[in-house]
Amino acid sequence: MFITFEGIDGSGKSTQARLLAEHLRAAGHDVVLTREPGGSAGAEEIRRLVLEGDPDRWSAETEILLFTAARRDHLERLIEPALAAGRVVISDRFADSTRMYQGLSRGDLRALVDRLHEMLIKREPDLTFVIDLDPDLGLSRARGRNGHEERFEDFGAGLQRRMQAGFRALAEEFPARCRLVDGDRAPDEVAAEVRAIAARAFG
Amino acid sequence: MFITFEGIDGSGKSTQARLLAEHLRAAGHDVVLTREPGGSAGAEEIRRLVLEGDPDRWSAETEILLFTAARRDHLERLIEPALAAGRVVISDRFADSTRMYQGLSRGDLRALVDRLHEMLIKREPDLTFVIDLDPDLGLSRARGRNGHEERFEDFGAGLQRRMQAGFRALAEEFPARCRLVDGDRAPDEVAAEVRAIAARAFG
Repeated sequence: MFITFEGIDGSGKSTQARLLAEHLRAAGHDVVLTREPGGSAGAEEIRRLVLEGDPDRWSAETEILLFTAARRDHLERLIEPALAAGRVVISDRFADSTRMYQGLSRGDLRALVDRLHEMLIKREPDLTFVIDLDPDLGLSRARGRNGHEERFEDFGAGLQRRMQAGFRALAEEFPARCRLVDGDRAPDEVAAEVRAIAARAFG
Repeated sequence: MFITFEGIDGSGKSTQARLLAEHLRAAGHDVVLTREPGGSAGAEEIRRLVLEGDPDRWSAETEILLFTAARRDHLERLIEPALAAGRVVISDRFADSTRMYQGLSRGDLRALVDRLHEMLIKREPDLTFVIDLDPDLGLSRARGRNGHEERFEDFGAGLQRRMQAGFRALAEEFPARCRLVDGDRAPDEVAAEVRAIAARAFG
């Protein structure tokens, strides 16, 4: 079972990933909770290289290569071994985030993201929760987190709106694995729906 | 004019790159002398990520992605702007080194290196000097450099022999731009041949 959470910043996906991991552990499953970019020692080093410093220090193409390198490392060193050992893997962000944040940043880049994915990643989640949220609410939530100001949160409301539309389109592009969940509710309510969907998907 | 120097470790390519740069500068050319992996601020950071630490910390695929990211940055930030400004660029190693060191490390990897090059690099040098040298001599030279022990120099004589054969095959694969130069002579003799070839190539 490979489960991912996607959505705009402030959508609550990290909270929901953690709550589902706790729920499944309480039910006796062996769960690995991870995140991207990062998730393995090497990928975390690449994450620092990409997210720290001037947002313009890398071109879009170089950034896509670095994210793909980080994902390949995360996949080889953590995700694939865990799945092979029968563990449940829950990741806060995965390839869909690159499809959105890098792929939507310029017209021709989604094709590059997709080709690199086909060549070097291949793996898709069994189930992806796309947490849908009003972009203004997401932005104020993301900004309210002290000391947690990362570069993707600095692009403002225009980007958040494009990303919300992008994530909705993504859920339609991959209907077999994606479930759009309304994130504009109390975390417990969202978590209950997430648990119900996971239970239906995996029995 | 984009000129690269390639060859096994200890072949003298760095010395020859420097000597040609000095010669062309003395002749009034505006020359940028650079190297790979690295050559731009971002690429040098990626270089450190790849070359430091345990040789097995990255898989071959992740390493190829990181080298391609470094090359893309080097190309965008240093090589292309310098060529556009009419400067001569001389690089100690470029894409041919990835074709050799990563591409020959496992049977299927040269195709990956080539596809990434076509997608994200495209640029080929106008002239490539392949410095050919007896692998045992190269190895003893590389080992003789104090404090200059890098990971590619640790693979030993077997790899050096495969790389020499690989570089010779490469010179045949790209005959329009590659010139094989015998590096088993005094540096001044090699430099004189390099200068003569450059003069014939660029008039």
